[in-house]
Parts: sequence; structure tokens; C-alpha cells
Amino acid sequence: MIRAGIVGGTGYTGVELLRILALHPAVEVTAVTSRADAGQRVDKVYPSLRGYCNALFSLPELDNLLACDVVFFATPNGTAMTMAAELLDRGIKVIDLSADFRIKDVKEWEKWYGMEHASPDLIAEAVYGLPEINREAIKQARLIACPGCYPTAVQLGFLPLIETAAIDVGSLIADVKSGVSGAGRKAELSSLMSETGESFKAYGVSGHRHLPEIKQGLEIVAGGNVGLTFVPHLTPMIRGIHATLYGRLTQSVDLQALFEQRYQDERFVDVLPAGSHADTRNVRGSNRCQIAIHQPQGGDTVVILSVIDNLIKGASGQAVQAMNLLFGLPESQGLETVALYP
Amino acid sequence: MIRAGIVGGTGYTGVELLRILALHPAVEVTAVTSRADAGQRVDKVYPSLRGYCNALFSLPELDNLLACDVVFFATPNGTAMTMAAELLDRGIKVIDLSADFRIKDVKEWEKWYGMEHASPDLIAEAVYGLPEINREAIKQARLIACPGCYPTAVQLGFLPLIETAAIDVGSLIADVKSGVSGAGRKAELSSLMSETGESFKAYGVSGHRHLPEIKQGLEIVAGGNVGLTFVPHLTPMIRGIHATLYGRLTQSVDLQALFEQRYQDERFVDVLPAGSHADTRNVRGSNRCQIAIHQPQGGDTVVILSVIDNLIKGASGQAVQAMNLLFGLPESQGLETVALYP
Amino acid sequence: MIRAGIVGGTGYTGVELLRILALHPAVEVTAVTSRADAGQRVDKVYPSLRGYCNALFSLPELDNLLACDVVFFATPNGTAMTMAAELLDRGIKVIDLSADFRIKDVKEWEKWYGMEHASPDLIAEAVYGLPEINREAIKQARLIACPGCYPTAVQLGFLPLIETAAIDVGSLIADVKSGVSGAGRKAELSSLMSETGESFKAYGVSGHRHLPEIKQGLEIVAGGNVGLTFVPHLTPMIRGIHATLYGRLTQSVDLQALFEQRYQDERFVDVLPAGSHADTRNVRGSNRCQIAIHQPQGGDTVVILSVIDNLIKGASGQAVQAMNLLFGLPESQGLETVALYP
Amino acid sequence: MIRAGIVGGTGYTGVELLRILALHPAVEVTAVTSRADAGQRVDKVYPSLRGYCNALFSLPELDNLLACDVVFFATPNGTAMTMAAELLDRGIKVIDLSADFRIKDVKEWEKWYGMEHASPDLIAEAVYGLPEINREAIKQARLIACPGCYPTAVQLGFLPLIETAAIDVGSLIADVKSGVSGAGRKAELSSLMSETGESFKAYGVSGHRHLPEIKQGLEIVAGGNVGLTFVPHLTPMIRGIHATLYGRLTQSVDLQALFEQRYQDERFVDVLPAGSHADTRNVRGSNRCQIAIHQPQGGDTVVILSVIDNLIKGASGQAVQAMNLLFGLPESQGLETVALYP
Repeated sequence: MIRAGIVGGTGYTGVELLRILALHPAVEVTAVTSRADAGQRVDKVYPSLRGYCNALFSLPELDNLLACDVVFFATPNGTAMTMAAELLDRGIKVIDLSADFRIKDVKEWEKWYGMEHASPDLIAEAVYGLPEINREAIKQARLIACPGCYPTAVQLGFLPLIETAAIDVGSLIADVKSGVSGAGRKAELSSLMSETGESFKAYGVSGHRHLPEIKQGLEIVAGGNVGLTFVPHLTPMIRGIHATLYGRLTQSVDLQALFEQRYQDERFVDVLPAGSHADTRNVRGSNRCQIAIHQPQGGDTVVILSVIDNLIKGASGQAVQAMNLLFGLPESQGLETVALYP
Repeated sequence: MIRAGIVGGTGYTGVELLRILALHPAVEVTAVTSRADAGQRVDKVYPSLRGYCNALFSLPELDNLLACDVVFFATPNGTAMTMAAELLDRGIKVIDLSADFRIKDVKEWEKWYGMEHASPDLIAEAVYGLPEINREAIKQARLIACPGCYPTAVQLGFLPLIETAAIDVGSLIADVKSGVSGAGRKAELSSLMSETGESFKAYGVSGHRHLPEIKQGLEIVAGGNVGLTFVPHLTPMIRGIHATLYGRLTQSVDLQALFEQRYQDERFVDVLPAGSHADTRNVRGSNRCQIAIHQPQGGDTVVILSVIDNLIKGASGQAVQAMNLLFGLPESQGLETVALYP
Repeated sequence: MIRAGIVGGTGYTGVELLRILALHPAVEVTAVTSRADAGQRVDKVYPSLRGYCNALFSLPELDNLLACDVVFFATPNGTAMTMAAELLDRGIKVIDLSADFRIKDVKEWEKWYGMEHASPDLIAEAVYGLPEINREAIKQARLIACPGCYPTAVQLGFLPLIETAAIDVGSLIADVKSGVSGAGRKAELSSLMSETGESFKAYGVSGHRHLPEIKQGLEIVAGGNVGLTFVPHLTPMIRGIHATLYGRLTQSVDLQALFEQRYQDERFVDVLPAGSHADTRNVRGSNRCQIAIHQPQGGDTVVILSVIDNLIKGASGQAVQAMNLLFGLPESQGLETVALYP
Repeated sequence: MIRAGIVGGTGYTGVELLRILALHPAVEVTAVTSRADAGQRVDKVYPSLRGYCNALFSLPELDNLLACDVVFFATPNGTAMTMAAELLDRGIKVIDLSADFRIKDVKEWEKWYGMEHASPDLIAEAVYGLPEINREAIKQARLIACPGCYPTAVQLGFLPLIETAAIDVGSLIADVKSGVSGAGRKAELSSLMSETGESFKAYGVSGHRHLPEIKQGLEIVAGGNVGLTFVPHLTPMIRGIHATLYGRLTQSVDLQALFEQRYQDERFVDVLPAGSHADTRNVRGSNRCQIAIHQPQGGDTVVILSVIDNLIKGASGQAVQAMNLLFGLPESQGLETVALYP
């Protein structure tokens, strides 16, 4: 059994890791930390886990994690970078769900995240944990930087088009809509049901932290500069991201075939039949990305619809997928669930 | 492998059966019928099932079901009673999720359901499929009448109190709230999001079909007449039932201990710690009933809070639990899931 | 023009007062206080008010309120009691939407609210602002204690039955469901959309602060002790309260006629036709209480369904109704709106 | 008093007209038709209107409308075109909320709406009822074609940019999100709460009927061809449209000033301060369009956020605004309401 630790067990990605790992046949969760709830039973805070988790929350200290084979960081940005080195030094793998190791350019990271990076030397080593691009590197990694939720949906949608140079990468648009769980489990006015229910809005239009991450990912694939307008929105539901992606075609191409071939061996990317519309409800509770491709009126604009569950393929499920690769387990182990519809 | 058929695969209980059985290690779904969608791929109608179900919908005809070991009826009331006999005659087990075989008094059934019963002779044989009461009978049954969603939540909540004669059964009140999926997948004005969203109402106060079912169940336990006021409500969410139950105590009793003992061996009934409040989100996507017990101000009124996912413990999950018992499988096989929180 | 001040303009009842008074032809809002937002434009915080409110938030200090004819307190409990005396001394009327002056027994108040009362001498003078009971007293008052949201829905529902001694007041049950705006505009985990959306739960079953308020109101009418079990619930919507009330009839009475006669002259209490079910959406955005009466199976249990918009008839609308009475204006002035359906 | 008739009083735009006109000081609703509900009291079907509407539904026949000064058609497409001529011949003004007279090119209309036009001769006369463009023509009109909901939000957002040739009209993108009431009050599976709640999807990406309407409107302003990609989405809320509009700037321009000047005299278009994000909740229940302008990272892509209440400024409110102009009333009469927040 792989012994896993979770630092930051009281956020939504933390509890989602607990939910997934509770039923993973090869993993045992041996430590769950929470500064605020240390000493309490995990299933007292999360009654949904009663009968599936006997752990107590412990303090987020090194000693409590040393018996682990792998430690997941489901923490706010700025925590993993202060603890990763000590864990790696002891041979413990680190899978970071926060943004600490996602951006290769440390100056860029510090600009967007507003703090000094505590482990700049580890950034180069960290492997960006998007299996559909980085599968082999993930298998060899010590430190994995799990992609953000928006970046997962956007990159998986644009990837086949950029890899084949089918679109002009100078003027991409990503209009993306997220459920409110993306804002995390934090006591903030803006996340109240009275503030977010029955309402729809964009936010961060002038610049969102996932912009440099998406650009970095797309530029690696494009082999050069990418022009991207990224507009995130908040939609009145709990789980789900829907990315509507726009690009200008530079050549005539069978888009449906292109996507189907690119993802034919990917268990967690599902290209819908031609003419379909992706719907977040069809991936809610699953680790899957579903993608639909349109070319309205046969013009030169391609429209990609890409949906994920932000807490699973956009966070904790993808982290477990990376863990499976890292430990030589079947990639989909513990992740074979059918979306909860309706 | 047990070969299962599903009659009525396009309603919410039908697709929920498909979801659960897709991952059940001992069951293979060999027939899914739908009059409207016959010939279509199931996963075209339900993209959430892509990769987990290769079946086509077939017509709801006997020939399409003869190769099954068990047939689930996830149909509107009035269908199972016309097909059950033929299946049973051929040695095929029948698990009916509709109301056709729930009420022992055929006159009472005909009054509430407004039609003549097509198989009155089978009613006596049918076993009411609430494992927490009828486990042994279910194991021996040929024909199982699965409980309704409201009756499941209400009976599990009142059961320990009535079995021990701790409350006056002459004046029970069940104030129950259901998510809108309980109304089924039917094109009706009253189920539109614009009609049900952001709104709360009672309905059927003068008399709801689940009233005689609940009374019958409670009277068997009480061994006599039960007086019950049952008020169902519609709450603006998709899944979940919350029963708030009121009774007058006739003796001093340690309520918490009473419930914990009664359900200590029940995998799918979870008595919450004293002082807790049950929350439907903590059972959404699971086959569990969670129960909390209160005695406000130490008075003689007991308040029981009982929650289930109406489509799982209130329908398809409970049906699979019964199937497991029927075929000698571990009772919780295929049903070990953690609720999808948040 | 009546000059009105609002202390605590950034909560939901505060902004609702602003919304109502913005269109009230006889009132001018001359001061809106907020400690946190002092100096800011009100419509910067609430863009819905752009074009209807030019005020700036000021500090909640006496000097900022002295030019007012009436001051509304839309504050947390414990604020109005510290400022009311000074305002009253200067001839300024006070309408308190908080709980500070609702309970006549100061010991009882201090027990439930967990603090010492700062103005016990004013409690006796305060008029409980439920116009349907206290209309004449309100007209003469200096200090009005507006009822809580739950107490409004529950009292209006029970009133005709208790006034006529039609039910046994020893065993009343009020099973009440509230939208989440009732929890106020506070940054609390439990009010997040991810925590409250798609979920239903009871809370405060062992004792809620509105219990003594409701009991006091009903006991005044009953002229003696009342036994009440009050169970509040949280339902996943923003506005609305639905009270389901249960009582045992002590005599045969034409319930529909009783309610229609009792409320025939009440502009804001609407008795629905026999057989109806009240629906919160039909009063959302209006100052109305709609009531439906049922006697299931002709038994001795009466079931009353009573709905209000918790922020209007349950708070700010009722406060304006009281203000209209206080200043000799038509009682419904500024309150004639039709519910926003759908 | 203006005597108004409403044909199609049971849809959401019909009941919204009833709500608005119930409080309009210069209008009396003298006829409300509904084939299905003829003979019933309007407030039986819509209890929200109790006390504000004493009308009975009548059959949608000419005789029932002859006493009107103006008739609103809140009907499905294809009805107004069969009745308008007879009304106009009798001097009765017609305000059509459906799409029958919106498209000037009858062949184009017939292609998108899939039927033969019954009154092609009236198309040229019909005035497109967007006051912000057509105010003077509306005042003189006999027949007004009210804009669709999406077209209102999109055109008001793009207008200032196209009028001043500030953007390249060859590659506009309108990514628009609508609440579910936009689908109307029709019993359809796809509009159930269980199908639309907690989910987000695009639809009609290959071509939606509002595309030619928007293009026609923008091309009149541009004085030439416009290239537009229009992607509508369904968001899990009842009311509200949020348009996110993308264009490429062709010149350096003070965007904020441009919008503020263009709309400075428009009562129902509100340009938010620089840096704002528009939020549908801030216009819910009001006739207002709120607009925010962004130029991310100072690049050449402009992003416009434009929100309306689809049933008010996107339908019934705008129709009343047109009626006011038509009859020489103050343009905002009966429409001065503050959005219902929260």
C-alpha cells in the first residue's frame, strides 16, 4: 500500500482527495493535516466520509509526514514551496495541487502571485502534471505541479489545434465559466450563496493568475509566442468548468478526426460525436474531460467546447492520476467513476 | 456474472441503475429498454455513460428480457404489474422500483393509483424491499417491491421508536422535503427550473400516494393503527430527501443509544453523533441514510432528521442492495461510494 | 418628505430598505451608515442602486443621524439598544429590525442573546411591529421592534386559530424553511454556495432565538402558556420563508372562512383559495404573506402553509409598513409591488 | 388610460407584461388571451398577481382585442404575423415580442424560422424596437418588432464601437450566457431543473436564430458586412443574460469615455465605472442594461461585458418602453424599479 499524506485537508481539493483515495485499492491515507482542525476526527468535519476515514487531523509539520511515500499539497499558494524540499530530501514524492511550481519563470510567478518564491531551485525540476502532455516525465518525477482547473480545460481544448498548427496562435480567446467551488472553502463575502446564486459575472478580466500558466503551456506546444485573451466567469453552480475556445483556422482540416486521433488513447479525454455540445453535468463527479468541436457556418473560426469537473480532472482527480503514473499503478485506478447525473 | 435487464432505462431511476451497475463487479447489463429511444445507443442519450455502457435501447418486450437473471422495472406505475408474471414464470427475478407491488391491500392501491391492478395475485408474494426490516425475506424472494423514496426516509427514521413503543403512534407527523428529481424525467411545466428554482412549496397536502405505503410499513411494526400526517414539499435542488419527523414520547428513553443500537449492523444507515444535524449533501451520490435525533428543550416531543439521496437509497441503490441479497452477493457490493461533497 | 436614516446599510436588510425607500414617494434617505464602508458611495458597493441613491456611507455616529425624522436599525443584535435612547430623546423615531427590543422579559432576552441588555428601561415601551396585531399601538409608538422573519410567517399562520381557540395550544409544531439570505451578509463558511447549494438541512433544533419571540407572541394571543416545537431549516435558495404549521383542532370550524374573515382587511396577508399550496416564488419581491389551509383526510390535524419574502414582509418591507403607520401615510405606500415571477 | 391587450398571456414574457403593466399608471390591461386557459382567472394561474389583476383569460380572437389601443404579442413565433394586419387596419397599434417582424429579409427569416411568412408586406413597415437606436422611428410606428433578448445585450454592447469604427467588424465574437427562463414556459425535458440545474452548456453553436437578427442590426450600424461568431449558453439560473463580447481594436480610443458619452442620455443603459465587472444580479427585475469595458493587458482586444434581465430589457420591459414612446408617455414610466438584490 502506498502511504499518502495530505497537507491542507480542509479545503475542497483536500476533501476531494480524501474521497477519491478512500476507495483507491492501492493507497492508504496515513496523514491529513489541518492547522485549524488538528486533533479532530476528519469525519466530524466531513460527515460524508463517515465509515471511510478514521484519521484525525494533525498539524502540518514535517514529523507528521515522514512515514508517507507521497505527500499531496492541497494548500493555498505559498505553502508547498516551504515544505517540499525537506520532503524530497527524505525521498518522499511531492504532488502539489497549488500553483507554487507551475510557472517556470520565477519572476513571472512572483509578479502574479505577489510573494517571493521560497524554493526557486526546485522550479526547474518540477514536472507539470498534465498526463496528456507529460506522461513520461510524470512517471520519473519527484515533484509534480498539478495544473490549475482553468488551464486543464483550456489546454486540453486547444492542444490538438496547436500541435498541428491548424490555428493562428496569435489571437486565441478562452471564455471560461467556473462553478463556485473553484473559489475554495474560504469564508468570503463574494462566495456566499446570496451573492453568487442566480447571478452570472465575469471577473479578473484585466488579468487572472491562470493566464501565464495557460500561455506557458500553449507556448511550449506552439514553440513560440501565443496571444491569448482569457476571461474567467463565475456561474451559479458548485462544480464544473466549461471552456468555450475560439481560434482562427489557418488551413482546412477535418477537426473531428484530428481530435479523435489525438485523444484516442486517453482514458480521461472524451471527444464527443460531431454536432454535440458538452455539458458540465456529464462529467460532474468524474475525472473526465469531454470535448466538442464546432465550425459555425463553415467559416474560419473554430469553436471548442471543453468541460471538466474542476475539483477532479481540474484538481484532485488529476493529482491521483499523476500519482498512479508515478508509482507505476494503472493510470485510471481509483478514478473509474461515472458522472453523477442528474 | 449476473445478467440484468432494465425496463424503462430513460428515467432518472433507470439511468441511476445504469450508473451503479456499470461498475458493479458481478453484474452485466444485458438489456435496457425504452420505447421512445429503441435502437439508439444508451450513451448517446446519456453522455455521462460513454465508455461504461455499450448497450442499445431495445423495445420493452418479453423476448428482449429472456436472457436475464433479473429484471429491474424503472418504469411509471402500471407497467411492472403487466410484465412481472411472465418473467417470474421463466425463473427470472423481478425487482420493481415502481409502486405496483408495494401496497398489500389491492383496493387501497387501486384507490390511490387510480387504475385496476393487473396482477393482484402477485401482491401477496411480493417482498417489500427495505433490507433494514426485511433482509431475510428479500434473500428468498422472487419479486421485490422497492420502497418509495419518501417511505424509505420516513420509515428508517421512525422505526426504532415504534419498535420499542417509545412514541405515541396515534399522532405522528412527517414533514418531508424532496429535490426535484423525485418528480422524474418527464416534460412537465411544474418541473421546469423556472418554476422550481428559487422557490419552496408543499404539495399534495390533502393526500399523497406515499401516505398509505408509509402507514402500512409503520403499522406492521406497530402492530396496530398508526395516525400519520404526511406533508411532502419540493425544495430547489436536484437530489436529496430530508425528513423531519415528530412524535410524542411515551417514556423516558436514551434516544441516541436506541438508534445507535438498532442500526449498528446496518452498513447503509448511519446514526450521527448526538447534537448533529443531518444534511442531504452528505449522502448525495451514496446509498446511505443519515439520521440525527433531537429532543428540544428536553420536552416530550422527539424530532428525527433523516436524509437520503432519493435516487439511490430512495430508489436505484436500494434496488441493487436488494439484488445483492437476492443473489447472495455481499450486500454492499457496487454501493461503496462516498457522497459527492461539495 | 420624511427624512430617514439607516444604520447598518451594508447588510441585506439595509440594502433592501434602500431599495424600497428609493422609490417611496414620501421618504428621503438622508443618512446611511456603515463602519466598514464609510466615505464610499453606496452605489459603488451596490451597483443595483446606481441612479437611485446618491448617498455616501457615513460612520454610525449620533451626529450623522440628528437630521433624521426616523432611524432604521438594520444592524446585528446589540447595536440598536446602545443608540436608541439618544435618538428618542431628540424626538427621532426608531424602527429596529434587529432583535434588541422584541422580547419583553429581559432575562429571557439575555439568556438567548448572550449579552447584557443596554437599555432595559426601553423594552417595555417598544411596540412589537406586527401591524396585523398591533396596528394602533404602532401608530402611537416612538420605538418599534420589528418582528423576526420566522416569527412573522409563523404568527400570521397560527393567529386566527389561536384567537378563536380552535386548536390545542399545548402542542404546536412549526416546521419552517428559510432561504439563505436569512443568515445575513456575513463572510461565514456555512453560508457559501458550495456549502448550501444543492443541499437541505435543519439547524438549531435544540433551540433557536426566534423560539422565545414566537412563543411570546402566541402566548399574548392565547392568554396563557403555549407549547411549541420550532424547527428551522435552510433551503437552497436566496429569498423566501415557508412555514408548515401543525396544530390539533379542538372544535369543528370552517377553517377557510375563519382565515378569510380574519385577514379580509389586511393588504399584506392573502388567504389563498381552498385547496391551494403556497409557494415562496409568488411572494418573492413583495411585502405579502400568502397562506393556505389544509385539513388532511378531514382529521383533527390542521396544516397551515404560510409564505413570505424573508427580507421584505420578514424584515425591511414590514419595517416600512410600520413607518407608514407611524407617520400617518397610507399603510401600503411604497410597498405595492408584484412578486418577481419567475 | 391606454387600453392594452396581451395575446399569449401564459408565457413568461406575457406574465412579465402583466406584472409591469399592473403598476403602470397610464395603462389598463383590458384583454389577456390564452387558448389553454380561456375562462380562467389570470390570478388563479399566477397567484403572484392576486390583488393586481382581475382579468379572465379570453380566447385569442380578434373580437376580444378590438377595444384595445395597443396589443402586445407575447406568443410563440408565427402567431403575430397572422393577426397583426387586422389589428393595424382598425387603428390598433401592435407591439410584437416574438420574432415575426424582426428580420427584414423575408427569405432569411423563412430559412431560420422554418415557415412561410404570413404577412411579408408588413415587414418593411415594422420598426425594430430598440429605443437606443430607433427612438424616433418607434414614436411614429404602428407595428413594433421588439428585439430578442440576446440581440439586445449584444447590440448595446457593440454599438459604440461599431458606430465609431473603433473595431474590426470582420471578426466579432459574442459569447453569451442566458438564464433558463429564456427557453420559455414550455413543458420540455431540456428545461427541467434536473436537466439544467448545476450544469452549464453551450447550445446552437452551429447556428441560432438570433444570429441573423444581431448581424442585421450590427450591419445597419456598420454600413456593411459584419463577421460574427455567436455562441449562446445556458446557465443554471432563471433570469439574466451576460454577453461577453470580443473585438479587435483598429485604433487607440478612450473606451470608457466613448461608452459613457454614447449612453449618457439613456435611462436604461448604465455604463459602469472603469475596472468594474457587470453582474446579472444587479439588473434582475429592472429594465436596465449595465455595461463594463475592458482592454486586457492593454492589448488590441476589447472585451465588453453587457448584462440585462432577459425578461425585462430583453423582452417585456423593452416592449413597455417602446409603448411609452409610441403613446407619448415618459419613456421610463412604469419601469422605474431597482433590481432585486440579493
